[in-house]
Amino acid sequence: MTRLQTAIPISIEWMDNHIKLLNQQALPHITEYIDLYTLQDVYEAITALKVRGAPAIGITAAFGLAMSAQNYEIDELEAFLVKLQKEKEYLNSSRPTAVNLSWALNRLINSIGNARSVNEAKTDLLHEAIQIQAEDEAMCRQIGENALLLLTPGDSVMTICNAGSIATAKYGTALAPFHLASERGKHFHVYACETRPVLQGARLTAWELQQSGVETTLITDNMAAHTMKTKKIKAVIVGADRIAANGDTANKIGTYGLALIAKSLQIPFYVAAPSSSFDLTLKNGDSIPIEERNLEEVTTLNGTQIAPEGIQVYNPAFDVTSSELITAIITEKGILYPSYTESIKNQLLRY
Amino acid sequence: MTRLQTAIPISIEWMDNHIKLLNQQALPHITEYIDLYTLQDVYEAITALKVRGAPAIGITAAFGLAMSAQNYEIDELEAFLVKLQKEKEYLNSSRPTAVNLSWALNRLINSIGNARSVNEAKTDLLHEAIQIQAEDEAMCRQIGENALLLLTPGDSVMTICNAGSIATAKYGTALAPFHLASERGKHFHVYACETRPVLQGARLTAWELQQSGVETTLITDNMAAHTMKTKKIKAVIVGADRIAANGDTANKIGTYGLALIAKSLQIPFYVAAPSSSFDLTLKNGDSIPIEERNLEEVTTLNGTQIAPEGIQVYNPAFDVTSSELITAIITEKGILYPSYTESIKNQLLRY
Repeated sequence: MTRLQTAIPISIEWMDNHIKLLNQQALPHITEYIDLYTLQDVYEAITALKVRGAPAIGITAAFGLAMSAQNYEIDELEAFLVKLQKEKEYLNSSRPTAVNLSWALNRLINSIGNARSVNEAKTDLLHEAIQIQAEDEAMCRQIGENALLLLTPGDSVMTICNAGSIATAKYGTALAPFHLASERGKHFHVYACETRPVLQGARLTAWELQQSGVETTLITDNMAAHTMKTKKIKAVIVGADRIAANGDTANKIGTYGLALIAKSLQIPFYVAAPSSSFDLTLKNGDSIPIEERNLEEVTTLNGTQIAPEGIQVYNPAFDVTSSELITAIITEKGILYPSYTESIKNQLLRY
Repeated sequence: MTRLQTAIPISIEWMDNHIKLLNQQALPHITEYIDLYTLQDVYEAITALKVRGAPAIGITAAFGLAMSAQNYEIDELEAFLVKLQKEKEYLNSSRPTAVNLSWALNRLINSIGNARSVNEAKTDLLHEAIQIQAEDEAMCRQIGENALLLLTPGDSVMTICNAGSIATAKYGTALAPFHLASERGKHFHVYACETRPVLQGARLTAWELQQSGVETTLITDNMAAHTMKTKKIKAVIVGADRIAANGDTANKIGTYGLALIAKSLQIPFYVAAPSSSFDLTLKNGDSIPIEERNLEEVTTLNGTQIAPEGIQVYNPAFDVTSSELITAIITEKGILYPSYTESIKNQLLRY
């Protein structure tokens, strides 16, 4: 797979009879692609976090279900659907909270609504999985194109976590402009915050951008302010887990601090996310629940204790960035500017 | 040493014929005190970073030289001084950049200027070392008392790195108010930033405050903004490596980001440092050199690689916080407020 080693990394590839999956758990030490042949293989890859990123999980699950269905030895459409539903429920239980997972699996089920035979259903399922992947890639590419309207190759830009190609079909969201520029022989200099406690920046973004030929410098999270000031950072760009109706954005812990620092230093702060990340049922960010995770993520690293036994820990996985700190929100449909309550409503209703 | 295990930790103790030293390298896994009997023991403890913090290094070296001199079998004062000078130079080479080290050793040499016999000189040296330690403790205590004029027990306060008791004779600088309050049965809730890449917050501050009975919560550095906003942080207090004539303050990397975030959230930001930290030859912080350290501190943790091979790294050890972000500077002589160019000059000239 030379292509994967010298260009934009892709984490999921359909190989006609099986799935080739980048094992993100082995990164950055080992670049390993594993072959998934059965529903059980796919289930285990998802639960073991070998694939991560909501879109990537959805795509993997879709291919997993379609792949498994190819081997059903059933002639009756009704019996076929019963088995498909059962396997869908099983896969859906692998990561109960990932929205894209159930969304993708439901799309597969719905795709065979007009099938007149088992063979037709099998083909429909595969086509739908391929379609989900293709749509995600196109959406990410468009987010990247739109981001390039705001960013100038040659500039130094800061990011956090991994809103990247390997978390999606291809390109990612916040990292899409860097990959696109790289494809065109143009280059940004990206400063990647390591993103404690789980180190997605150090382990995944640094690796992914390196693979894609993007000049990348790794910093620890507490170096962000000094780096923004002394390294001529021209913009900060981040992904989003959920965006409220007023533009308040929940994203990986540390995003809010970057936004406050960028505002103080008059550096533009951009959120890049697909339109599916907007949750218009939430008036603002106050009602976005913040997941708190276990203390071992903070007190240990690769199994080594780095803090005293018995110390209290606060470990929020996300924070909320107030919309007034966000210069623009970049989606596949365009660029949104304040006031976001208006621009979000207008753009989401327009389509 | 039950006292050390249940109260404010002290890293250096003179035991009449040897030094009892807290091995800071073994923290937080093991609380180990080592016994230093020779000049060589002291030299090795300093180079191996078993003792750290400029004041603590100075005190250890002073006791080391005085201890060694007790065993000189020399009757002539002149010959005694020759040997003392030679051993002083040797100890002084253990950490060439630590100002307190040469300052403390020079004080010892000067202390025997009036000695009329070798025995008197030996006593003078020991007294001077004890005096250096006592003065540092008194100075830190006074910084703590002054800080308590600005902080209210019961409040939640954030800090970074370890401007602590174990880096000084006792109490520390930024941590002094918490220890003093604890001695009086009053309690703060301290949020300690882990302080990547070397983790002084996780390894040392969390341990030190735990020993002293201060309620402490450990966070990763990128959680600071979310924690300040959601945990009712009433103040941020940090130490200083160097303070320019206008109040610009160089301190551990991450301090500048905390100051910008605190300013945005209207949370007071305090610097606590002895008056010896001021460098009036520097007009402002622009001329403070920022040490850049090796990339392995960022890419590895306890010998484990956490980033891809070949990634570029930026690893500044300090940053500079502009004086306009600092609410007050707390020294042993009092509390300084803006405009600092005036207040620093007035206070430092007053004594």
